[in-house]
Amino acid sequence: MAVKIDVLTLFPEMFDIFNHSIIGKAKEKGIVNINTVDIRDYTLDKHKKVDDYPYGGGAGMVMAAQPIVDSIKKVKESNKGKVIFLGPRGNKFNQETAKKLSKEKELIFLCGHYEGIDERAYKYIDMEISLGDFVLTGGEMACIPVIDSICRMIDGVLKTSESYIDESFYNGVLEYPQYTRPEYFQGERVPEVLISGHHENIRRWRRLQSLKITRDRRIDLFQKLNLSDEDKKLLKEL
Amino acid sequence: MAVKIDVLTLFPEMFDIFNHSIIGKAKEKGIVNINTVDIRDYTLDKHKKVDDYPYGGGAGMVMAAQPIVDSIKKVKESNKGKVIFLGPRGNKFNQETAKKLSKEKELIFLCGHYEGIDERAYKYIDMEISLGDFVLTGGEMACIPVIDSICRMIDGVLKTSESYIDESFYNGVLEYPQYTRPEYFQGERVPEVLISGHHENIRRWRRLQSLKITRDRRIDLFQKLNLSDEDKKLLKEL
Repeated sequence: MAVKIDVLTLFPEMFDIFNHSIIGKAKEKGIVNINTVDIRDYTLDKHKKVDDYPYGGGAGMVMAAQPIVDSIKKVKESNKGKVIFLGPRGNKFNQETAKKLSKEKELIFLCGHYEGIDERAYKYIDMEISLGDFVLTGGEMACIPVIDSICRMIDGVLKTSESYIDESFYNGVLEYPQYTRPEYFQGERVPEVLISGHHENIRRWRRLQSLKITRDRRIDLFQKLNLSDEDKKLLKEL
Repeated sequence: MAVKIDVLTLFPEMFDIFNHSIIGKAKEKGIVNINTVDIRDYTLDKHKKVDDYPYGGGAGMVMAAQPIVDSIKKVKESNKGKVIFLGPRGNKFNQETAKKLSKEKELIFLCGHYEGIDERAYKYIDMEISLGDFVLTGGEMACIPVIDSICRMIDGVLKTSESYIDESFYNGVLEYPQYTRPEYFQGERVPEVLISGHHENIRRWRRLQSLKITRDRRIDLFQKLNLSDEDKKLLKEL
């Protein structure tokens, strides 16, 4: 059965992005079902307004609780998944969260806009996720990479041959350099070891490159690594 | 003159997302110009292939250097901006980077796919940005929030009244709770202070909420704060 994802948003058209590439294929194959719900359809305001001025003053508009809560209630009739809100106060999204959520059969995402949502809607939210320490025009811009990252780990979305890469990231090191044909490009040759056919040397070279790049660019990740005896030996040879 | 952004990608249609909402309006007003270039148009391969097997073996396909380099060269004829690659080895994107890049007049983004790009294309890249520690199906999924976050800070994109919010994030605290009409929602009333009309009390209440939420949810941000005497007093009263 397809994994069922409902997205509550003021901009359903933005999720057309999932009609392309890998997630587009997964939808066609019936592996995931990404459905959008327009929050505006649920407002009881006669002018179809979904936002209003903040109590206490201040700039910007706040999304009212009513249309959010009513659209969540409606979606919950056919989707028993967690309600996940994309917002700056949430836990930072990472590969571990992606992996965990990719095991769920149903998920509901809520995208906020304007200067925030009425605090009283929060009690209908099970989990808040932040994409990172930067401001976006709306929750959609965070929701899209989050859904992408979750969906690519659902069984059957990637070909088996493609899926090893998250393991590498998951193990906490950055990728080693990759090369493809031609052997010479603008006078620069592929590193000799990669055309040697010596699998053990290739494995060791790649591991060393990963360790080196991680140490040089992401000391925070490097310090968390549990270096094996071989890793230590490789780094010493450097 | 409009800020000029060229995006090199294998999925130009994905950037239709910027025809909506705030960035859509900015494009209509001629404040930003987001143009896509299909990398596939630049391959010299007779089957229009842009990827190939990695030297040294391993799963997945690697994007070849030639179409990437040739499309960068072409775009550089009319865009003198930095070439920014979205990739896992880059510096993590944050509000500071968004602010800095929003001052540029021209920018070029390169989106990779498959298991990476041929290392020999990197010398044409000026800057690598990572969205966070998670894996995506392609660079587009990272490029879109990055462009959104940069563009919203370009002069004229947001109404002045909307733009204060990044200052708040920039100052390193999370948002205080927001409320809008009605005064009662499902039996829950807006906090009394917000309808008191007492501006100084409102300001203090909001500041305390921000400090409290930041301390509870993001101790890493809280520890970096330079607490004022008033902040300390507010927290003591808690």
